[in-house]
Amino acid sequence: MSRTRIHNLSISLDGFATGEPQTLETPFGHAGQRLHQWMMATRYFDPDGSTGVDNAFAEQHTPGIGAEIMGSHKFGPPGWEDDPGWRGWWGAEPPFHTPVFVLTHATPRPPIEMEGGTTFHFLRATPAEALATARAAADGGDVRIGGGPTVVRDFLAAGLVDHMHVVQVPIVLGRGVRLWDGLEGVEADFDVETTASPSGVTHLVFTRKPGA
Amino acid sequence: MSRTRIHNLSISLDGFATGEPQTLETPFGHAGQRLHQWMMATRYFDPDGSTGVDNAFAEQHTPGIGAEIMGSHKFGPPGWEDDPGWRGWWGAEPPFHTPVFVLTHATPRPPIEMEGGTTFHFLRATPAEALATARAAADGGDVRIGGGPTVVRDFLAAGLVDHMHVVQVPIVLGRGVRLWDGLEGVEADFDVETTASPSGVTHLVFTRKPGA
Repeated sequence: MSRTRIHNLSISLDGFATGEPQTLETPFGHAGQRLHQWMMATRYFDPDGSTGVDNAFAEQHTPGIGAEIMGSHKFGPPGWEDDPGWRGWWGAEPPFHTPVFVLTHATPRPPIEMEGGTTFHFLRATPAEALATARAAADGGDVRIGGGPTVVRDFLAAGLVDHMHVVQVPIVLGRGVRLWDGLEGVEADFDVETTASPSGVTHLVFTRKPGA
Repeated sequence: MSRTRIHNLSISLDGFATGEPQTLETPFGHAGQRLHQWMMATRYFDPDGSTGVDNAFAEQHTPGIGAEIMGSHKFGPPGWEDDPGWRGWWGAEPPFHTPVFVLTHATPRPPIEMEGGTTFHFLRATPAEALATARAAADGGDVRIGGGPTVVRDFLAAGLVDHMHVVQVPIVLGRGVRLWDGLEGVEADFDVETTASPSGVTHLVFTRKPGA
C-alpha cells in the first residue's frame, strides 16, 4: 500500500517551519540555516557527518519514495512563476530523483526534466487531486509531501498524511510560517513517538492509527 | 545564590500553556486536564503514580523554593478580584507551603494566611519589583515563577529566569495562551537539554548560561 510521508520537517519551539521574509538569498528568511543545522551535520547530508540518531532519521527521507509533492515556496522565491528560466534552487541535478509535483496558483508550465531522474511537473490542484496524480506517477512507491509548512498543513487538514517526521529545534523564531495553525486536535489520528537527540533536537514521529 | 525557577510548565505542540476560555469550572479552558495528565500520573501527584522520568522532573518543583510568584489567572477565574471571599482554587491547604505573591492589576487586598504555610500576598508590581519582594520573603530560598504563561513570558522577556522546565505534550490545542510569543531568540541565554519520556511527553530544561 502506497503511503503519504513527510520527513525532516524542522520547526522551532514556537512552531515555525520557516522564517521571513523569503528571498532568493534567504530561502528560510531570518531562520537562515538554523532549522536545518542538525541535518547538515549528519552523514545523510555530509559524507563526514555524524551517524547517530539524527542521521538515522534523516536517511528515512529517501527509501521507498516514488514521487514528491511540494509547494510553490519550496520550488522558488516569490516571483519565480514570472521567470521562465527558473528551474528550482538545486542546480542541474536536484536531490529528488523522482517525479516532483509543484503546486502553483499560476498557470502551470510544461514539465522540466532535470539530471538524475528528477522531473518537475506543475499542477494547479487540490491536495487530494495532487496526491492522486503523484500516486499514479510513483509507480507503487510512497509519495512524500516535501513542504513547505503551508502545503503540509493543507495535507494534514485533509487527512491525507500517513507518516510525519517532525524535528523540533530548540530555538524561538518569533515569526515566519507556523506548522500547526488550524490543526487543533490533529493528534487524535496519530500515534506519536518522541526521541531526544544528543544534538539538542527532538524527533517526533506521527504514524496514522489503523482505521483513522 | 537564590535562583528564579519555573517547573512543570506544560505546553502543547503549538505552544499553548492553557486553552480557552478560562472559567471557574475550566481553569485551563478547552485544554481540560490534557496538559497535565502526565503529571497526575506520577507519584508527585498521586501516591500510586509512576516513579520514572516524569516523576523525577515533577518532584523538582518543590525543593529549595522559598516563595512563589503567580499571575492573577493562576489564582482565580476572571472576576475573582471582585469576590472578597475568593481564596484560590486549592481549598484550605494550598500545595505551596511558602509565601505566594499574586500579581494583580486590581487594588491589592490584604494577605490571606492559609493552612500548611501558604500565605497569599497581592501585588501590583513589575516583574523585577515582584521578584525583589519575593526574594526577600524567600529567606535564602529560590523563587518559583508559577505561571500562567503570560507571567512566565514577562519574566523571560525581562531576563529574570535562571531555570525553566517545560513539558511538551503531543497535542495540538489550536487556541489559548501561547508561551513563546514575543520571545524571539530567548534561547541564546540558555543551555537547553531535552529528554523524551516513555509517556509521550518531552521535558525541556533551560538553564541560564554563565554570564548571560
